[in-house]
Amino acid sequence: MAQNIPVVENIMNANDRLAQENRARIESAGVFSINIMASPGAGKTSLIEQTLPRLKDKLRVAAIDGDIATSIDSDRAAAAGAQAAVQINTGGDCHLDAVMLRGALEQLDLKQYDLLIVENVGNLVCPANFKLGTHKSVLVASIPEGDDKPYKYPGMYRGVDAVIINKVDLLPYVNFRMDYFERGIQVLNPGVTIFPLSCRTGEGMDAWVEWLLKNAGK
Amino acid sequence: MAQNIPVVENIMNANDRLAQENRARIESAGVFSINIMASPGAGKTSLIEQTLPRLKDKLRVAAIDGDIATSIDSDRAAAAGAQAAVQINTGGDCHLDAVMLRGALEQLDLKQYDLLIVENVGNLVCPANFKLGTHKSVLVASIPEGDDKPYKYPGMYRGVDAVIINKVDLLPYVNFRMDYFERGIQVLNPGVTIFPLSCRTGEGMDAWVEWLLKNAGK
Repeated sequence: MAQNIPVVENIMNANDRLAQENRARIESAGVFSINIMASPGAGKTSLIEQTLPRLKDKLRVAAIDGDIATSIDSDRAAAAGAQAAVQINTGGDCHLDAVMLRGALEQLDLKQYDLLIVENVGNLVCPANFKLGTHKSVLVASIPEGDDKPYKYPGMYRGVDAVIINKVDLLPYVNFRMDYFERGIQVLNPGVTIFPLSCRTGEGMDAWVEWLLKNAGK
Repeated sequence: MAQNIPVVENIMNANDRLAQENRARIESAGVFSINIMASPGAGKTSLIEQTLPRLKDKLRVAAIDGDIATSIDSDRAAAAGAQAAVQINTGGDCHLDAVMLRGALEQLDLKQYDLLIVENVGNLVCPANFKLGTHKSVLVASIPEGDDKPYKYPGMYRGVDAVIINKVDLLPYVNFRMDYFERGIQVLNPGVTIFPLSCRTGEGMDAWVEWLLKNAGK
């Protein structure tokens, strides 16, 4: 008689399982957390630099910065007012994963913070495939990258909760069709929240900061 | 008596072996070939668009364009005057590898061309780890990406034969220390050829085109 093999549902891979554990750890400390992803140079660190002073006296922030090499990003986050900044050097890996984040979380007394900002490695492909356990994913696009990016990198645009369009101050100097770009996003990710802004001039920062405060319950 | 196990030197992985085969195929057809790599949006396709008209009546060019999705790039290369343009859709993979290039080469009668331009997937990390078999590797950086990129993505800057610094027309509008950027490159890759240029204004294109012609033996 044939053996009855039970259907096993919801088999998670090791990364997803660790991401769930990270989430539980973050939530039990009452922290709201985001994972910021982008191409190299789109402005993830600049966004953090411009955001932190606007959260002063409202949220206590910890930043975790992922890079192939250097501690440039965590130094900038700390200088901008993060109460704590942890650098992860991936040693060549092109994305953060849940086990790397777990290692960084172990460096932090999470109860001391209201907001955890995780800055991923600059990469418009691979980070989309590795959940970290954060509450929301934020993609930073930028005007000089070009208006075809949602079409060419759909995986990244599909899975995020908010899209920031940085460097709008450069719109007069490059060819960028905002309607074509936004149409590409909406097809992949209908109704996703979009924040056009400039980290250089500060234009548009208020709406983004308001979204953060609201999500952090403030 | 113990078995005498010979020392096996120079074990190549499968990708490197295929890259060698690609190189042999390209060379036997008398073609000069380059692999263009960059962050998403640095201007790989724009560079090809601006280069091809300048090679008209001098070199017959085939372009192979790698992307996660769409044929936007090969369409642009064909429109700009490539005699042939092959699109590789990686279906999620964040880089080209030698087996993908082999598949594309099989679509081309290489003897019909003098120059083969391979445009890699937009990614400042992974393509550095996968040889394709092309003669020279070219990295396209761009001013709005920021001057810290050689420090943060050393693997990519270390292995290339030429660095193009695109979008120099945006220098007046962003914070970019050219000396800091170039110092980062020179530490990783001493003496590497650097071409500052703008695909938008055409400034600096001549030196780059001359380098291509010289390398192609014209």
